[in-house]
Amino acid sequence: MNARERLYLFDTTLRDGAQTAGVDFTLQDKIMVARLLDRLGVDYVEGGFPGANPTDTEFFSAPRTERAVFTAFGMTKRTGRSAENDPGLQGVLQAKAAACCFVAKTSDFHVVHALGVTLDQNLEQIRDTVRAAVAAGKEAMIDCEHFFDGFKANPAYALACVHTAREAGARWVVLCDTNGGTLPDEVAAIVREAIHAAPGDHLGIHAHDDMGLAVANSLAAVGAGVRQIQGTLNGLGERCGNANLVTLIPTLKLKPDFAERFEIGVSDEGLASLSQLSRAFDELVNRPSNRYAPYVGANAFATKAGIHASAILKDPRTYEHVAPESVGNRRRLLVSDQGGKSNLLAELARVGVEVDKADPRLDLLLATVKEREALGYSYEGAEASFALLAKRALGRVPDFFSVESFRVMVERRHNAFGERVTVSEAVVKAMVDGEPLMTAAEGIGPVNALDVALRKDLGRYQPYIADLKLTDYKVRILNGGTEAVTRVLVESTDGDGEVWTTVGVSPNIIDASFQALVDSVTYKLLKAGAPAEGQPS
Amino acid sequence: MNARERLYLFDTTLRDGAQTAGVDFTLQDKIMVARLLDRLGVDYVEGGFPGANPTDTEFFSAPRTERAVFTAFGMTKRTGRSAENDPGLQGVLQAKAAACCFVAKTSDFHVVHALGVTLDQNLEQIRDTVRAAVAAGKEAMIDCEHFFDGFKANPAYALACVHTAREAGARWVVLCDTNGGTLPDEVAAIVREAIHAAPGDHLGIHAHDDMGLAVANSLAAVGAGVRQIQGTLNGLGERCGNANLVTLIPTLKLKPDFAERFEIGVSDEGLASLSQLSRAFDELVNRPSNRYAPYVGANAFATKAGIHASAILKDPRTYEHVAPESVGNRRRLLVSDQGGKSNLLAELARVGVEVDKADPRLDLLLATVKEREALGYSYEGAEASFALLAKRALGRVPDFFSVESFRVMVERRHNAFGERVTVSEAVVKAMVDGEPLMTAAEGIGPVNALDVALRKDLGRYQPYIADLKLTDYKVRILNGGTEAVTRVLVESTDGDGEVWTTVGVSPNIIDASFQALVDSVTYKLLKAGAPAEGQPS
Repeated sequence: MNARERLYLFDTTLRDGAQTAGVDFTLQDKIMVARLLDRLGVDYVEGGFPGANPTDTEFFSAPRTERAVFTAFGMTKRTGRSAENDPGLQGVLQAKAAACCFVAKTSDFHVVHALGVTLDQNLEQIRDTVRAAVAAGKEAMIDCEHFFDGFKANPAYALACVHTAREAGARWVVLCDTNGGTLPDEVAAIVREAIHAAPGDHLGIHAHDDMGLAVANSLAAVGAGVRQIQGTLNGLGERCGNANLVTLIPTLKLKPDFAERFEIGVSDEGLASLSQLSRAFDELVNRPSNRYAPYVGANAFATKAGIHASAILKDPRTYEHVAPESVGNRRRLLVSDQGGKSNLLAELARVGVEVDKADPRLDLLLATVKEREALGYSYEGAEASFALLAKRALGRVPDFFSVESFRVMVERRHNAFGERVTVSEAVVKAMVDGEPLMTAAEGIGPVNALDVALRKDLGRYQPYIADLKLTDYKVRILNGGTEAVTRVLVESTDGDGEVWTTVGVSPNIIDASFQALVDSVTYKLLKAGAPAEGQPS
Repeated sequence: MNARERLYLFDTTLRDGAQTAGVDFTLQDKIMVARLLDRLGVDYVEGGFPGANPTDTEFFSAPRTERAVFTAFGMTKRTGRSAENDPGLQGVLQAKAAACCFVAKTSDFHVVHALGVTLDQNLEQIRDTVRAAVAAGKEAMIDCEHFFDGFKANPAYALACVHTAREAGARWVVLCDTNGGTLPDEVAAIVREAIHAAPGDHLGIHAHDDMGLAVANSLAAVGAGVRQIQGTLNGLGERCGNANLVTLIPTLKLKPDFAERFEIGVSDEGLASLSQLSRAFDELVNRPSNRYAPYVGANAFATKAGIHASAILKDPRTYEHVAPESVGNRRRLLVSDQGGKSNLLAELARVGVEVDKADPRLDLLLATVKEREALGYSYEGAEASFALLAKRALGRVPDFFSVESFRVMVERRHNAFGERVTVSEAVVKAMVDGEPLMTAAEGIGPVNALDVALRKDLGRYQPYIADLKLTDYKVRILNGGTEAVTRVLVESTDGDGEVWTTVGVSPNIIDASFQALVDSVTYKLLKAGAPAEGQPS
């Protein structure tokens, strides 16, 4: 194992990832992300472009990592000025970062047409910039923009740029597939040429996902001699995003083709934190997590089919290429009309319902689940409703309260100012310990009004649900047209931070929503250990 | 160009894609998807597993494609029975499909441990199944489950399975990376071995995305000799999904490495429909579209402020590896949308609105569209609402009627028999030619009641909307949580068979639904040439 070569991970979430449409990092966000990355074990954290905007400048006023090399991004110096007299370059060099990564043009077309300098002037810019960074005590890197397209048009010049950067003292020369249009075989072939211009462990790869090949291109580049991979958390980045480090790390650590040849800075514990880290990062940038993400997605180890499920129970390796726990994820056997009793048992165990395999009530429960799924209930996405259904079948859910009746009204009319307004009101009549409790509420829409009214006064159960919050509401219409049925999923949370989902199905959307709301409240009462109806508190 | 080899696309959205957690195709869904795929130009449409469930059995009661080969999925016959006496196999052979694709085990470990038969018995199952399919006049295919893992453990046996299938007359032998754990280099190396067991154009690839490499593995397999690619729309499929055909098709058609060597069944027009098709499919399965999807995502050609944007304006090829129009997508420059107006003109032409390029009202319309899209309106999926918006801006939509007020009530209570019932009622007050028209109706749910009431009596406009029918209703909650906004899409049709979709957006689902309903009625009145308010009929 000592013979393994070191492979370096360079994270650019805070620089190239910040180019993502809809993403705007605050200073606090940047500090948090740098901490996440540092703990994960990446080798370089590129934090942004000091001088380009106040956030980045402030971010670089202090070092932000402990283990990882904190890196500032910048542009090579301008032609016609010395490095000392280029304020942009000086700003980057003065940042509190141990390394600087400068973007340089390496395609002759772009040098002449976009930059408007001669090919030699561009080489000089690269040389002087790297030298200035080294003189300032920095670890210097050059990002070769459009390297692969440039190489195809003029290989000698592209290679001259790489060679110049290395000769001037750049620790790394990074080959960028800037527009994401290069195929893996081309990447490998071109890297094999570039390695002659920068032998040893000095080449990096920076891939974009415009053809869904950023991960493959990064791996192909490593196979051909590259020793630094640039990427981002969850593949954030301009257009379709950058190479996804969250996908690459498990492959590098778990697949023998890579793990036997290379060592990376991420430990087994870091790897096991990956699923949580990926979701925490999505929370931070306020994006829904990709359920289908390799390794870390909620569905990455989920199985629906009955035959596959029983095979997995026999031997997980059958349908799992790695162990879910290794990346901090977990196996899910989905209860669905395709699954059988083995799915049901596994799912019960997971939602914490212990039951004997031979319990005769299991057959009835399975039949009930299938019947309800045929009606449109979907328990694979609503584990709290599934847990309630199962516990009820096994006699473990007490009665808490019942709802005698409800009424919801939505009215659009002109208000006193002549403006068109829509108001929603709900009235709920619940029974607790034989006593009627009537509540009324307004809401943004009918479901919101109903929710507010339902949770307004449940008598002595009220304290148990005080910290219950709805966090998401989803509607799906099944079988379009006249026989349409509505399925509603409600996501809730509470003070513990537990998140649970409940389901309701009805031809009437209000009815369906109400079922899911009542299930959520009941789940919370059960969880909080509320006493049964008629029992003392 | 005549020397190009034919590459075949096999779509398994309706079979392997149906294994996706949260996806449940109805019969109507399946019919619609088959039609989309047929029009796109894929070569095979695998529709499901006849006999496995009532939906699939019904789906295979009739041929569902015109150009593509309609394919039934099944399992190889069981050991100890003849093909004639295997009801599962017979069910597949009797399906109204021109081709059958049978899954077979080709890994010695799985044959012995999961299947519990001898290696020879498994070969016999493959042979007899293929022969029975060929005898029944079917185009026969074998899906080699776990082929790559099987090959690594026992190459001779894995190849024997391939050879046996081919010798028995299988048109295609498909190599499956069932658990998605094989790397591109391994795929290429193993395909190069397998091609000896099945020379010519008889090998297929079936890749899963568990390492984010399904697209790369499919391309690597083609490079090594495979001539059929299996995949799904938008990469739907078990766990992390299957190879994404929507990503693969543009790469195969636009990248010279593939386009110069291979020909596929998708035309340039099919390619240009891809972005719309991808989004329409997401609507159908009610998933939010992936903004970052290669080629077709809303962000795939989006560039944020700065140096890149101005470079793109100078020469789009700088940061675009293909032209967005080639895949039916468009360029988005997030700060100054220069392409906006020409896009708008193109979309207007598409919905049949002719207008002079220099018409000053176009700027206002563009601003309105952008503003409304920021609120959550999505005109890509609601062309009728877009046409109305445009024609209104251009002064071409007369006033027909207005709605003064409406009221919807949903009540759950006990009826005279003590049964729990939920009733929905709506009252609508419309104005036609200055006269109030008040209607009331009951419905299955609040939206249905509102729709019935609205269309019950529109005075002299009533004859024009007599043949209007709602055919679908979709709800999507945007930005989950407290700031949630509801987007409703209503699909309508009439006696002509024209189908149109309208959109409504509001924090209140009833309001959003009502907007979409009113747009649908207005669209129909315009289409039917109804006179303007106050004008004689």
